[in-house]
Amino acid sequence: MTATWLPTLITASPEEGYDLAVTLSRVAVRKTQPDGEVRARLRQSYDEDFGALIAISHVVATNFRTVAAANDYWRSAG
Amino acid sequence: MTATWLPTLITASPEEGYDLAVTLSRVAVRKTQPDGEVRARLRQSYDEDFGALIAISHVVATNFRTVAAANDYWRSAG
Amino acid sequence: MTATWLPTLITASPEEGYDLAVTLSRVAVRKTQPDGEVRARLRQSYDEDFGALIAISHVVATNFRTVAAANDYWRSAG
Amino acid sequence: MTATWLPTLITASPEEGYDLAVTLSRVAVRKTQPDGEVRARLRQSYDEDFGALIAISHVVATNFRTVAAANDYWRSAG
Amino acid sequence: MTATWLPTLITASPEEGYDLAVTLSRVAVRKTQPDGEVRARLRQSYDEDFGALIAISHVVATNFRTVAAANDYWRSAG
Amino acid sequence: MTATWLPTLITASPEEGYDLAVTLSRVAVRKTQPDGEVRARLRQSYDEDFGALIAISHVVATNFRTVAAANDYWRSAG
Repeated sequence: MTATWLPTLITASPEEGYDLAVTLSRVAVRKTQPDGEVRARLRQSYDEDFGALIAISHVVATNFRTVAAANDYWRSAG
Repeated sequence: MTATWLPTLITASPEEGYDLAVTLSRVAVRKTQPDGEVRARLRQSYDEDFGALIAISHVVATNFRTVAAANDYWRSAG
Repeated sequence: MTATWLPTLITASPEEGYDLAVTLSRVAVRKTQPDGEVRARLRQSYDEDFGALIAISHVVATNFRTVAAANDYWRSAG
Repeated sequence: MTATWLPTLITASPEEGYDLAVTLSRVAVRKTQPDGEVRARLRQSYDEDFGALIAISHVVATNFRTVAAANDYWRSAG
Repeated sequence: MTATWLPTLITASPEEGYDLAVTLSRVAVRKTQPDGEVRARLRQSYDEDFGALIAISHVVATNFRTVAAANDYWRSAG
Repeated sequence: MTATWLPTLITASPEEGYDLAVTLSRVAVRKTQPDGEVRARLRQSYDEDFGALIAISHVVATNFRTVAAANDYWRSAG
């Protein structure tokens, strides 16, 4: 993780904002469990656990709220 | 998922906004588990798990908050 | 669910707003599990599960936040 | 539950606002499980379940956010 | 709990605001389970349960959001 | 934890704001379980528990929302 992984919360479109929300959700996991091998192993089990998938979706929704507010909901886009 | 799945957060009505919140909730699941067959199999079990249904409803509520704010709560609609 | 289940987020009173929050919470469940018979069966078990009741209350709280903001917290009411 | 259980979100003090948040959290439980005897029985077990106590505290926090915003955080009080 | 446990949401510093968020999180637990002996017993087990610790942190975060907004994020402090 | 662990919510960049959100999430855990040895032991198990990692990510997202709002989303940065 370099100093530039999060230069800004501003994105060109809602979709890019959503992708940023996904990234924000993953970075916290990486910062807590930095070992990529362990994460890969854990991934295998949670990928088939719907409860985990829903929980991830909730984290993304929380981060998307932040990113959307930062971009004034892209109201002036398009 | 093409570049156009989320062109805007603005919707014509609260109900369309709610449907968009449902979509936003599902996309995070799809992005985490892209294999449609796996998702279909998992669906079968969670569809009968009330805890999961409530958790999904919570994600939708979080996303609906974002969409509703983006649309200024459709105050000037109708 | 017809096109008119959610014509507006504006309600005449806080209590009606709360009821709308309950409705918003239930619709997500219905959209995910459209089979009413399955839902009725699941209901029987979760009705006696306090964890589920608390989780539902959390979803309602999240939706009530949205509805309350939409109505400017009914500050000018009454 | 009469038509007057929630006449307003405005309270005279932060503490009264907190109590209203507790009430808001309980009403959703009552609306989902209206049978008082069942709730009393369930209460006995969840009262000794710390996970449930924390979950309730989370619901109260979510509702308190709404009530506090409605009262402009009681900034002009006192 | 006296009438004065929550006189205001305004604090002199972010750190005091954080401590208030911790207090807000605990009061809901106390109001639900007023028996101090039971709480002390439960504490022993949850203190060693990381899931519970994370859940508590989530409640604190939700309350801190409210307190921080009330204080306009202490922007004019210091 | 000294009196200065949280002097301000204002950070120079989004990335520093994210790191502050991680810190805010950890302090609540430390305040609840002050014994570092116990936390270290618990860490070993939760580090391999994906559910816990996702839950932590959710707490960070909630705190990041607060920090981002405090910094007006770093809109004028860069």
